[in-house]
Amino acid sequence: MHILVTNDDGIFAPGIRALSAALSHLGEVTIVAPDRERSATGHAITVHSPLRVKHITGLPASAAYAVNGTPADCVKLALEGLKIEKPDLVVSGVNRGANLGTDVLYSGTVSAAIEAALLGLPAIAVSLADFRETDYEGAADFAAQIAGRWRNRCLPPDTLLNVNWPREKARGVKITFLGQRKYENKFDLRTDPWGREYYWLGGAVVNDETPESDVWAIENGYASVTPIHFDLTNYRLMAEVESWKIDLA
Amino acid sequence: MHILVTNDDGIFAPGIRALSAALSHLGEVTIVAPDRERSATGHAITVHSPLRVKHITGLPASAAYAVNGTPADCVKLALEGLKIEKPDLVVSGVNRGANLGTDVLYSGTVSAAIEAALLGLPAIAVSLADFRETDYEGAADFAAQIAGRWRNRCLPPDTLLNVNWPREKARGVKITFLGQRKYENKFDLRTDPWGREYYWLGGAVVNDETPESDVWAIENGYASVTPIHFDLTNYRLMAEVESWKIDLA
Repeated sequence: MHILVTNDDGIFAPGIRALSAALSHLGEVTIVAPDRERSATGHAITVHSPLRVKHITGLPASAAYAVNGTPADCVKLALEGLKIEKPDLVVSGVNRGANLGTDVLYSGTVSAAIEAALLGLPAIAVSLADFRETDYEGAADFAAQIAGRWRNRCLPPDTLLNVNWPREKARGVKITFLGQRKYENKFDLRTDPWGREYYWLGGAVVNDETPESDVWAIENGYASVTPIHFDLTNYRLMAEVESWKIDLA
Repeated sequence: MHILVTNDDGIFAPGIRALSAALSHLGEVTIVAPDRERSATGHAITVHSPLRVKHITGLPASAAYAVNGTPADCVKLALEGLKIEKPDLVVSGVNRGANLGTDVLYSGTVSAAIEAALLGLPAIAVSLADFRETDYEGAADFAAQIAGRWRNRCLPPDTLLNVNWPREKARGVKITFLGQRKYENKFDLRTDPWGREYYWLGGAVVNDETPESDVWAIENGYASVTPIHFDLTNYRLMAEVESWKIDLA
């Protein structure tokens, strides 16, 4: 089994090291990951500038490459540029901090997994819902347990899982849907040393508590597994928009 | 009626000028847009560096601000930082080039509209499916026609429309779903003037031809209107994943 590993915290982050170590028990691991932190990059790709690749040693993988691009770039480049052996699975993480609910839209970690699925490969994104970074190993072992299932049974080709591991030892596992997770979007207005104003985005998380959502699962100490896809069509609204009789002016 | 306008081609692009001019017939327009091209940024947001705002004159709007951030940043900052009067609608575009099918995952133009919807506002993303930039006015007028409906009837609060205008004069309007649109993902491997290798992403578009998709509509000369949402949960796969009996190791 060959597994491609990437992340958005950068190739030297502790989460990707733990993940690669756990997955290397299942087969061969190739790492292609950003050369520095690229969190909150969403599904950005690099089309207007060149990408550089650097071979990295000392990581628990058969081969490791750092790329000056985004997580989605890394997956594209691994498969179509570096032309590594076709992976059976792509795993992205372990992210420092949760990726729950609408976080998945902003998350470079999840975008890498979506990019893999777009290229026809099953994928897992895995995040540690704890900025104190207490248990990357627990998250990595859990992801490896799920990854092991690809060896043992035929899973649907469009399988794409978003996995979050709780802050304390998990009480159990919940298969969830994406909940709501809003941010206050508070912008600090500050003045720089030259007297010029700037804004800086901050603001606390406001979680909803819809039972059985991924947000709820993590808040209640469960590991969360959410199947996701990338068809953003709002099929429910299609008939409504049809009824508007939009026509050329 | 107050309309917030943004884009991902930058505040000085011809598409946003055409769009603002068309929408200003409906009400007051405020522009908050990136200070330079930010295409293919996906849903990236700026959390690790400050945002600067510059007042811009000479655009067809009541007020216009350039921001050194992404399209999603611009929407957040307009509402929560600059605290402009709450808009009735957010319109993003007119983008130079189509945003069809899986393009919406990469598109800064569409991300701005998604960000607006996350903040509770109805939104439209509008793109001109023609890099030759022949008809921004046609695309802008069509978007304004749709925007006018917000004045006249109560639309669902979660309405988010992805609009594409064809290369030639439109034959009609199709309400569509997101089709498939793949890229060859060809990476050129080149050598820089210092003898070092680099990769550059290129590759032609490979459109599918599923009838009635947005890709098909544009290929066949129709204007395309696709309702989209941002719940990436794959509900269909939830029962399947439940059956895997994933548990703690």
